[in-house]
Amino acid sequence: MSAPRPELLSINTATVRKQWALPDIIAGCARHGIRYISPWRDQVAAAGLKETARRLRDSGVELSGYCRGGMFPALDRSGRRAALDDNRRAVDEALALGSPCLVLVVGGLPRNPDGTCGTKDLAGARAMVRDGIGELLDDARTAGMPLAIEPLHPMYAADRACVNTMAHANDLCDELAPGGHAGLGIAVDVYHVWWDRDLQREIQRAGAHAGRLMAYHLSDWLVPTADLLLDRGMMGDGVIDLKLVRRWMEDAGYRGAHEVEIFSERNWWKRDPDEVLRTCIERHQSVC
Amino acid sequence: MSAPRPELLSINTATVRKQWALPDIIAGCARHGIRYISPWRDQVAAAGLKETARRLRDSGVELSGYCRGGMFPALDRSGRRAALDDNRRAVDEALALGSPCLVLVVGGLPRNPDGTCGTKDLAGARAMVRDGIGELLDDARTAGMPLAIEPLHPMYAADRACVNTMAHANDLCDELAPGGHAGLGIAVDVYHVWWDRDLQREIQRAGAHAGRLMAYHLSDWLVPTADLLLDRGMMGDGVIDLKLVRRWMEDAGYRGAHEVEIFSERNWWKRDPDEVLRTCIERHQSVC
Repeated sequence: MSAPRPELLSINTATVRKQWALPDIIAGCARHGIRYISPWRDQVAAAGLKETARRLRDSGVELSGYCRGGMFPALDRSGRRAALDDNRRAVDEALALGSPCLVLVVGGLPRNPDGTCGTKDLAGARAMVRDGIGELLDDARTAGMPLAIEPLHPMYAADRACVNTMAHANDLCDELAPGGHAGLGIAVDVYHVWWDRDLQREIQRAGAHAGRLMAYHLSDWLVPTADLLLDRGMMGDGVIDLKLVRRWMEDAGYRGAHEVEIFSERNWWKRDPDEVLRTCIERHQSVC
Repeated sequence: MSAPRPELLSINTATVRKQWALPDIIAGCARHGIRYISPWRDQVAAAGLKETARRLRDSGVELSGYCRGGMFPALDRSGRRAALDDNRRAVDEALALGSPCLVLVVGGLPRNPDGTCGTKDLAGARAMVRDGIGELLDDARTAGMPLAIEPLHPMYAADRACVNTMAHANDLCDELAPGGHAGLGIAVDVYHVWWDRDLQREIQRAGAHAGRLMAYHLSDWLVPTADLLLDRGMMGDGVIDLKLVRRWMEDAGYRGAHEVEIFSERNWWKRDPDEVLRTCIERHQSVC
């Protein structure tokens, strides 16, 4: 078993987003000796892009990723164009913040103006995702910003991401960047993929193309889970064999950050954020 | 597109379980001209096995399946033995009720006595499932009761079923009944598998071995979904392309019942059960 690597800990800023604004999170992580964060675009927009870049430089905290691009499917061409334009802005922001990659939550079924799903054509949505990533990839490559496709749990197929397995993400990479990396890879979030019978094989497959494993996200699956979106567990409180998945990632060549991303309405979002960060540090060393 | 086949409608008795006991459900289905039901063991136990068999004969309502066997994993040998014994009783009940198959919800991670998950060894649980089905299959074949493995949505991997894709169910069938059917098949529930990129291929694969497609369950995936277990939608109220999946089933040779199984704490369990049955009949014809 690999030794703990506390220096690889990263905090996805969603983990304490209810308690702290982004400047507080950067300062808090610096105070706790946490070297990496992965912020969300709305938090950066609220704090200011240049101001955030300055705070990061001053604090010595770096990005392990930027959340997020994606959401490619739309009912019409102008909607898809607007999504692509927004993704280009996300690439620019990721560059300004020195992120190693832009994480893509690819989107689900196209929405009506009122927010309801506008079609039941899942295969069509998946084609839009492939096309959208392909178009964005041209610009992202030019800009030098790698894109990391994040497969989401199948329970989000309709409304958040219709790429739901590592195999699908690997297939997209094979299609759009057949020689490996070339600016396209995968963000592996244990919460989304832990159940997958093919996980080890697909991690190995992504790793075989050096650099396709671009991010590694940690949390835990609680039993029971009270909410589809906002009831993730702290590492060690659920059923995921985190040390096993870490070994698979390392065996496949991954050497990057270990990013804790916990949406927790009933528990961690209600706690003192310094306690949350201390717990992340402790659990990262003891159970991951 | 295939014409509606109202005579194939079946009601999984969970759909109105909050409003009616099993005798009411049998009488209600008969009254509405519904020819099939799929009852749960606890309802049969409450109504009496022989009494239920008699009511079915008298009403002309038949079973499209029996819910359910499975739950194979356990922490120790005696627990696995107890599960197997209970499954044998389920086979006997299915026979007494004239069911065409016993549906298997295979179980997730083994439980501690207090109900919490006792290990994080998902691969181990999957091995116990394979072994448990293999052992039960010997008895079920002798008794002449086919077993139908039901892949459950990945969100149930920890606590209900660690077989989460059609591909996994097909692999189990290939391993335990390599020549096809031989008493082992699959129950396809759209709610659990609709998101799967490989669904059409795996339905075709199951159909290629005549008879492996043993049951077909209907409901819909709501957006948003309020609860992991008890917020299924009525057909047409969600995002699943039900006509498409039906076509895939028929193209693969399936000619059996269309079983409506809706757990709905916030909606359908609160309604007049006659209205629920009328809605099932109407939606089965219009959107399935």
